[in-house]
Amino acid sequence: MIKNDLFLKALKGETLDRPPVWMMRQAGRYLPEFMEIKEKYDFFTRCQTPELASEITMQPIRRYGMDAAILFSDILVIPQAMNIHVEMKPGLGPWLPEPIRTQKDLERVIVPDIHETLGYVMEAIKMTKEKLNEEIPLIGFAGSPWTILCYCVQGQGSKTFDKAKEFCFTQPTTAHELLQKITDTTVLYLKEKVKAGVNAVQLFDSWGGMLSPTDYQEFSWQYMQQIIDALEGLIPVIAFGKGCWFALDTMAKSGVSALGIDWTCSAKNARYLTGGKITLQGNFDPVRLLSPPSVIKTMVKEMIDDFGKDRYIVNLGHGIVPNVPVENAAAFIEAVKSYKAEG
Amino acid sequence: MIKNDLFLKALKGETLDRPPVWMMRQAGRYLPEFMEIKEKYDFFTRCQTPELASEITMQPIRRYGMDAAILFSDILVIPQAMNIHVEMKPGLGPWLPEPIRTQKDLERVIVPDIHETLGYVMEAIKMTKEKLNEEIPLIGFAGSPWTILCYCVQGQGSKTFDKAKEFCFTQPTTAHELLQKITDTTVLYLKEKVKAGVNAVQLFDSWGGMLSPTDYQEFSWQYMQQIIDALEGLIPVIAFGKGCWFALDTMAKSGVSALGIDWTCSAKNARYLTGGKITLQGNFDPVRLLSPPSVIKTMVKEMIDDFGKDRYIVNLGHGIVPNVPVENAAAFIEAVKSYKAEG
Repeated sequence: MIKNDLFLKALKGETLDRPPVWMMRQAGRYLPEFMEIKEKYDFFTRCQTPELASEITMQPIRRYGMDAAILFSDILVIPQAMNIHVEMKPGLGPWLPEPIRTQKDLERVIVPDIHETLGYVMEAIKMTKEKLNEEIPLIGFAGSPWTILCYCVQGQGSKTFDKAKEFCFTQPTTAHELLQKITDTTVLYLKEKVKAGVNAVQLFDSWGGMLSPTDYQEFSWQYMQQIIDALEGLIPVIAFGKGCWFALDTMAKSGVSALGIDWTCSAKNARYLTGGKITLQGNFDPVRLLSPPSVIKTMVKEMIDDFGKDRYIVNLGHGIVPNVPVENAAAFIEAVKSYKAEG
Repeated sequence: MIKNDLFLKALKGETLDRPPVWMMRQAGRYLPEFMEIKEKYDFFTRCQTPELASEITMQPIRRYGMDAAILFSDILVIPQAMNIHVEMKPGLGPWLPEPIRTQKDLERVIVPDIHETLGYVMEAIKMTKEKLNEEIPLIGFAGSPWTILCYCVQGQGSKTFDKAKEFCFTQPTTAHELLQKITDTTVLYLKEKVKAGVNAVQLFDSWGGMLSPTDYQEFSWQYMQQIIDALEGLIPVIAFGKGCWFALDTMAKSGVSALGIDWTCSAKNARYLTGGKITLQGNFDPVRLLSPPSVIKTMVKEMIDDFGKDRYIVNLGHGIVPNVPVENAAAFIEAVKSYKAEG
């Protein structure tokens, strides 16, 4: 049994003295010990080498003692396994030199054998679980099919993912075939992660907020729901859709254990839009971690007061940014651990 | 008096047979006649030459017959007038080689004499009004102080405007001084535009949705409200905040004549969040103009049904994108002009 089970209890909606805390992208470039490894090994070597991935996963836990670890990996290991070439270019980010833009392009995209293509992730999970020694839970994750499609079609990051949207709006049949292949792969992948030992999974729909509510249902949510249904009863699922405030009512009825909230949605709005009963996770603006530590502490206290200490997991509203001072991240975590409700 | 006053009547909330229509960035790169001028003259030459600016403003009106024209210009003429160097780099967009990031940087930023620095805009307005010959109204515009600050500090476009936010969160006093200077300049500028003959003004807060609701009030909205207050009784004002659904309740009480809505906010949500009485403008996803014309027509009809034909101005949810076929833009406009409510 896991010793610190605050996170798992919050996912079940149990009453707690304080909410659990972790940070999206907590194993990342703001940590000097991460930068040391980053200088020696390129991005996919870090993902694909279980010793490195598990070591990187442990780094923030050793330094800050979060209430959950999240496996160091990337959402783009999925298209890579599906026979789509993915590079990580320094300064640019993801780079897919042969994007999927036609029915013909789609022919080479496969639903892969997970052990063969992503066995390294399962090894990394097992190694991390040993290092964690049942102290805290381990989270596994995947991108939403829509967010994965965005990269597969656009070929790189974008402010608007206009090419990805154009693909969906002008070739909807092909788009749905691609989305279904990504969904099928993701379900197989997450089921293997569960077998390998993760204690919860999070689905990241980073670019769902680029779509209108109607298009979101058609091109993103229905595939998220397929994944959630496939994992029902196997593991707690957290769904996070950045900018997807308009779909929170649907998401709250989906069977997930918790919903991630970004910083544009206040605690009050988030509780209202989700019906007030489901566990919520979020929603500190990552750039607000550049405020002085004393300001961070006050803001975290207010955030917990606003969400309420129960059915709540403290987190950022998206991934931590590289230039956050380590003492500011410490202030964030400490403010949660020392939280006491008033009155 | 203006012959086609549908747009002005919609701003007053009057009952109409069909809503008026225009498109944000309607004078733009999707038009072949615009591209001809673009090949000959660089960006700021086009803005600063009244003959060119007025001609470009007229191009979409001649082709499609929108119910309002919007002066061809750019929100970044304001920082340029404030002694901040602004370039428009092909392929990159706005480029401010000496961004404002310290109190010292702020010293060189001035509240300029509008006639001296932006007289060319007033000339362009007068020339456009002549060409329009009282057929339809002319809209003038400005960026919100926050959105202008984003470019002044970041120095270029950005997915997150992290440097602009960092500036506000770590040097709030300096940030507020800059915001106040931009606000003061914008008020002077818009008052001159009114004198020159525009019939309405729109404030564009393109990057307000990057902020949390609390930070939005502090760094964006309070300055928007100052501008709205300064124009009260002089001219109808439309406020558009992309991604600012969370502030629509505040915006609805501000004294503006209409609010712009982006495509992530459904008509139902927009009416609910704004209290159901104010005129709304929007909200077609610009990338949806890449759908086949028949799909566009159906979607526009549904959009008008959803918003209701009164207290409504048909528009996109942000600026039109360059690769829209001219016949698709035509389908959008035509669908509005031929709109008939059912039953």
